[in-house]
Formats: sequence, C-alpha cells, structure tokens
Amino acid sequence: MKFVLAPDSFKESMTAMEVADSMEEGLKRVFPECEIVKVPMADGGEGTVQSLVDATGGIIIQVEVTGPQHNPVQAEFGLLGDGRTAVIEMASASGIAYTSPNNRNPLYATSFGTGELIKHALDRGVRKIIIGLGGSATNDGGQGMACALGIKFTDSDGYAVKLGGGYLHKIAHIDTSSVDPRLAETEFLVACDVTNPLIGPEGASAVFGPQKGATPEMVEVLDTNLKMYAEKIYEILGIKIANIEGGGAAGGLGAGLMAFTSARLQVGVDIVVNYTDLAAKIIGADAVFTGEGGIDFQTKFGKTPYGVAQVTKKVSPHIPVIALAGCIGEGIECLYDENFTAIFGILRKACKLEEALKEGKTGVTLATENIARLLALGIKKSNPQNKIF
Amino acid sequence: MKFVLAPDSFKESMTAMEVADSMEEGLKRVFPECEIVKVPMADGGEGTVQSLVDATGGIIIQVEVTGPQHNPVQAEFGLLGDGRTAVIEMASASGIAYTSPNNRNPLYATSFGTGELIKHALDRGVRKIIIGLGGSATNDGGQGMACALGIKFTDSDGYAVKLGGGYLHKIAHIDTSSVDPRLAETEFLVACDVTNPLIGPEGASAVFGPQKGATPEMVEVLDTNLKMYAEKIYEILGIKIANIEGGGAAGGLGAGLMAFTSARLQVGVDIVVNYTDLAAKIIGADAVFTGEGGIDFQTKFGKTPYGVAQVTKKVSPHIPVIALAGCIGEGIECLYDENFTAIFGILRKACKLEEALKEGKTGVTLATENIARLLALGIKKSNPQNKIF
Repeated sequence: MKFVLAPDSFKESMTAMEVADSMEEGLKRVFPECEIVKVPMADGGEGTVQSLVDATGGIIIQVEVTGPQHNPVQAEFGLLGDGRTAVIEMASASGIAYTSPNNRNPLYATSFGTGELIKHALDRGVRKIIIGLGGSATNDGGQGMACALGIKFTDSDGYAVKLGGGYLHKIAHIDTSSVDPRLAETEFLVACDVTNPLIGPEGASAVFGPQKGATPEMVEVLDTNLKMYAEKIYEILGIKIANIEGGGAAGGLGAGLMAFTSARLQVGVDIVVNYTDLAAKIIGADAVFTGEGGIDFQTKFGKTPYGVAQVTKKVSPHIPVIALAGCIGEGIECLYDENFTAIFGILRKACKLEEALKEGKTGVTLATENIARLLALGIKKSNPQNKIF
Repeated sequence: MKFVLAPDSFKESMTAMEVADSMEEGLKRVFPECEIVKVPMADGGEGTVQSLVDATGGIIIQVEVTGPQHNPVQAEFGLLGDGRTAVIEMASASGIAYTSPNNRNPLYATSFGTGELIKHALDRGVRKIIIGLGGSATNDGGQGMACALGIKFTDSDGYAVKLGGGYLHKIAHIDTSSVDPRLAETEFLVACDVTNPLIGPEGASAVFGPQKGATPEMVEVLDTNLKMYAEKIYEILGIKIANIEGGGAAGGLGAGLMAFTSARLQVGVDIVVNYTDLAAKIIGADAVFTGEGGIDFQTKFGKTPYGVAQVTKKVSPHIPVIALAGCIGEGIECLYDENFTAIFGILRKACKLEEALKEGKTGVTLATENIARLLALGIKKSNPQNKIF
C-alpha cells in the first residue's frame, strides 16, 4: 500500500506538515507496513514558504526589512532544498497583518520590504524566486519593491518620488540603470489566485483597496495613480501592464513584477504541485489524501485540494482522492465531479472554534484511521486472503 | 447492494427514524438502486417507544396518569404493529423530567402512573408488555405501580399505606387478592441497563437516590425502607428481590416488577434487537449502519450501536458495521475489537451544541454519502467493470 498525503495547512490549527503527520498516524494504525509519502502543500498564500521548505528539506531565513508602514519588521523567506530557489510570501514583508484596522493607509503603504526580501534571497545565490501574492497592505503597483531593487523613480524636478500608492502620479522618470544586475539572471514565478487587472472597476484599488483602508475617495486617487504609473512604464519601458490578468494582485505587485522582472504568473497551487514534484510522487499510490481548514464550492477555484485532485487525475483517474476539512461549507457536491472521491469532516464534537483549532491533530488522525478502515474493506473484498482485520 | 440502517436516536436532534432517513438519503445519492432496510433502534431508554412503534408500524397512545408527584401528567405508550404488544417507558409516567431540581422528593415520588400505563395497555388487549426503565423520579420499589394494578399495602392498623418510598416501612400486609387478573396472562420484558441491586451500598437509594433529590439522611431512610419492603414481600409472597441484579433500576421498579409480575430483565438493546427482528433483516446486507448522539468507550456497555454490532457479527462477521455520532468521545479504539468497522463524526463545522443539534440531518446525510463513496471504491476494485463513478 502506498499513500500520498498532500494537505494544505489548516489555518490557525496545523501546518501542512502537521496535517500530513496526523494523517500518517491514522493510516499507520490500519496499515502499519504502508508506504507514506508526505507532500505538505499550499496555494501560494499563507503557508507556502513553510510547505515548500518542508517538502524540499529547505530552511527558513529571517531578515529585517521595511514594513508596509515604513518601520522595520521581521520577515522571512524560504531557501529550498536545492539551494538555488527561494520562496517568498509578499505578506511576510508587506502584509496587512502589520497594520491595525484604524491606522491603515494604502496611499502610504509600500512594497519596499518585498524588494528587500528579494535582494536578501539573491544574496544567498538563488536564481529562481517563487513569490506568493496575497494578504498585502499595499496599493503601490510594486513601485516600492522596484525601488528596493535599484530602480529610480523621480518627479519632474528630478527628486525621488516618495514611496506609496498616493505618490505614483508624480513619477516623471524611471531610471533602470542601477537595477540589481542579478535580476536579469533570475526567474520569477508568481503565485497568484486572482485575475483582476491593475486598474479599472475590477482593478486592484477598486476591489482590494477598501479592505486595506481605502475610502471611496482614496480608491479614486489610487486607481488614477496606478493608471498614470502604468502609462509611464509603457512610455519608458515599453511594457503594457494596465490590463494583464492578475496584474492587480497584491495592490498591483503582480503588475510591478511583470514590469521589472521576468515574472510569470501562475495559479499558486500549480506552482506548489510542480515544485514539490507531486505528480511523480503520486504514481503508484493507492490513494491520495488532501485537505484544508475549510472546503466548499470555492475550493474548485484553485484551492490546494482542487489542485491535488487535478494532478492526481492526470496521473491516474483510478487513484481515489480523499479530502479532510475542519469546516465543510456549502456546495461541496460539485467537487465530486472534480475528481474528489470523498470529503470528511474532522470534528469530534460541537465546540467553539478555538477548541476545534486545538483538537485538529487528533481529529485528522481519527478521521484518517476510519477512512483507512473502510479502504481496507475494499482490499479485503478484492482479495479475501488479505486479512486486514 | 443492500444496506441495513439501525441507528439509535440522536438525543435532542433526531429520532432514530429521522437518522435512518438521513442515512438513506446519503446512500441513495451513491447507490440509487440499493435496497435499504430501516430499523430504528433504541436501548430501552428514551426513544424506545418511538423506535419500536416505527419499526413495527405501530401507534402511540396518549393517556393521562398520575405523575411522580401525584398530580396528573400526559403520558404515552406504544401499541406495536402486531396489536398484541405494548411498549412503555416508565419515565413517560414517572420520570424525573416531571420534577424540577428544587422540588424533588423521592420519599414522596410514586410509580403509580407506571401501573396505570400498564392498565391502559392491558385495556387495549395486549398480553406482552415491554417496559423501559431509566429516567425515574421514584425510589418506591415499584409499590405505586403495584397499587395501581390492584395490590393492597396496609399498615398494622389495616389502613392503606401512603404512596412513596418514605412510607414503605409501614407496610404490614400485602393483599394480592384484587390484583388485575390480566397480569397473570401477560408477559413482561423489562429493558434494564444497570446491574444494581435493590438495596445496599450499590442499591437504588445509594446510587441513584441523590440525583432524584435525596439527601444523605433520605438515602438512609429510603434504603432501610426498601430493605423492609423486600423482607415483607419475601415473608408474604415468598419472592426474594433484595439482591437480584438490576432490581435497583428505576428506584426499585425493577424489583417490584419481579415481585408482582412475570417480569424478565434483559439488556435494553437486546430486547429491541429481538423485537425488531434485526438479525433476520441483516442477512445478506453489504453493510450495516448504526449510530447514536454520542459514542465513546461506554458504548460497549450495552448501548445501541454495540448491540447492533454484536448482532451483525452473529449474522456474519464479514458484514461491515459503520457507526456515526454527533460526539465522538474518548476511547473509541476499544470498539474496533467489538465488530465496529469504522466510526465517523457528522459535524460540518465548529459550532455551538444548539446549532449542531439543528444541523444533524444534513450532517448524517453528508457523512453517509461520503462513506458510501468509499464503499463504492471497494466494489469497483473487486469488480472493475462496475462503474460506480
């Protein structure tokens, strides 16, 4: 028997590796001799660094960078097991978690720290950088990130333009002559799970601005500024970023990465699937286990369990995919058509969320054990000599 | 495919039949052509009347009787589908639910109403009565019940002894000459899940008295009175009830039934298993589903899912038994050795108990559906031509 365990983290309860460990414990109780391949997953959001580090035997490196509100923050990035690839969550440097609801100001917030994280990664010799977008406090089109990497934005008087989405309209010149030369040798893979463009009614400012503290007036300013920023980039660098799908992710960092680096945008879970070599690991599996804190109809819009189900189908449509969740929301029936064999909750009793989060591991182990006991039935049926029980 | 659905009720959430209906819905989504046999179960406690009525196509009859505190209460009993058998829960007439915590008085509480219920049942022509003990407010050794059936308890002056466990010591004479003659023709089957004797440190008063409002002093009085009561019954009727296993159930009603009727005590779930003809219904099943609101290590002490697992084993050790529960407590591992194949929770998310109770049906349906999807895997494996998915 071979099982591949490829869960996402259960937010606020367990890392992806802890989920996989708990699944393993449940399976081993039923199939003590089974082969277990643990592949902690993520979808480009929170936990991506941890998962890729866990999956590749890498390390996490902590560094001080400039936070979204221009004060120093402790951020981190992952150096993967190959020593040549870094993985960065932009939120670690420039995330909304560094702000509090009553002092959010997207006119001022900057992605500068994300650029510093990239520099730190380059200093480690990497030439491939995976960046997870999402959870940003910023709306600056990645201008701060570009500054940190040596690009100079100056106004019509030749002075440096201040950092923040509120000042982009002042940019008159963009000087790339001092850009970090290592950027040109570096492959950027951007994990992005939205399709919003940089500007317009579906753009970064209109859709994500409000949750970063933008008033309706600010949204208008920010959107106009990003428009002028995109025009200036086209004028000077010849790169069109205004309407690219996903350019609006992370306050326009998606667009900024496309303007100033070799970035390719990709669905987050697909990056993780590829980078963990999940397909190869699934070959010959008797079942694949996945899961996430919450599963519902939105899971099929590129969440981790969906990505795992799809790659399993490509390997073999005969391998069952079994998903666990702490919270099973509405509309999961649609997932049965997306190569999910079965979906189980892990809760043992009615209780408050805080308690449920604490009890995650025993819940995953117990559910997995009992699923394994049902799988053993099938094995017994197909081979009555095989006495599992 | 044939499935037998034999759950208990999920207390305060679903009757046993509602649980079975929800399980059926989940199974039919996966096996639309399957044969479903629903056998709502109980263990002699709350829900036994409803379950046996449901299982046999009987009816529930409501009647007014004397409550434990001597005021009238609306009680009910079941007339089973054969028209010859009644099922009574003593708590329906003499239950603790009719009292409130600050006016409980087991010196005074009487089982008279239970005797009236028996009379009502006899009036309907039944000659077999199943009585579920448990949940009583009384500690009268069944003296009230006996009075209602025509037995006369008088003191040394020839006056009728008052009703209640506090007056039993006054009994000087027991006159059975006016007893309801139908009693002699009637078979009593008593569902009892405790082994406590009538008297002594493990007896009715010491163990169950306190939860019925008895102070330590009252416990002493009650125990002494029951002892004298038992001695008087032995002296006059020649029947020993003081130390019989289970005689202490329902404030000594177990002992009273043994003294004044042909009662046989039996584990509750075994009565229900027998009376619903569960074993015969299980023959040829591909799986048996059971469940109860809570499952834990105590389940093996005669709770419904345990009884279902045992009877399934007798029919065939190859039929899987799958249990569902709203709350999975500690130590369920021991159940795997008791013919439980797998045990699953039904909760979809962390929430308050009240909400969980309301969401019971969808939880049961969803869990059953996903279990069925795993069972279908086994079928597919044993017969690859059978394309379930």
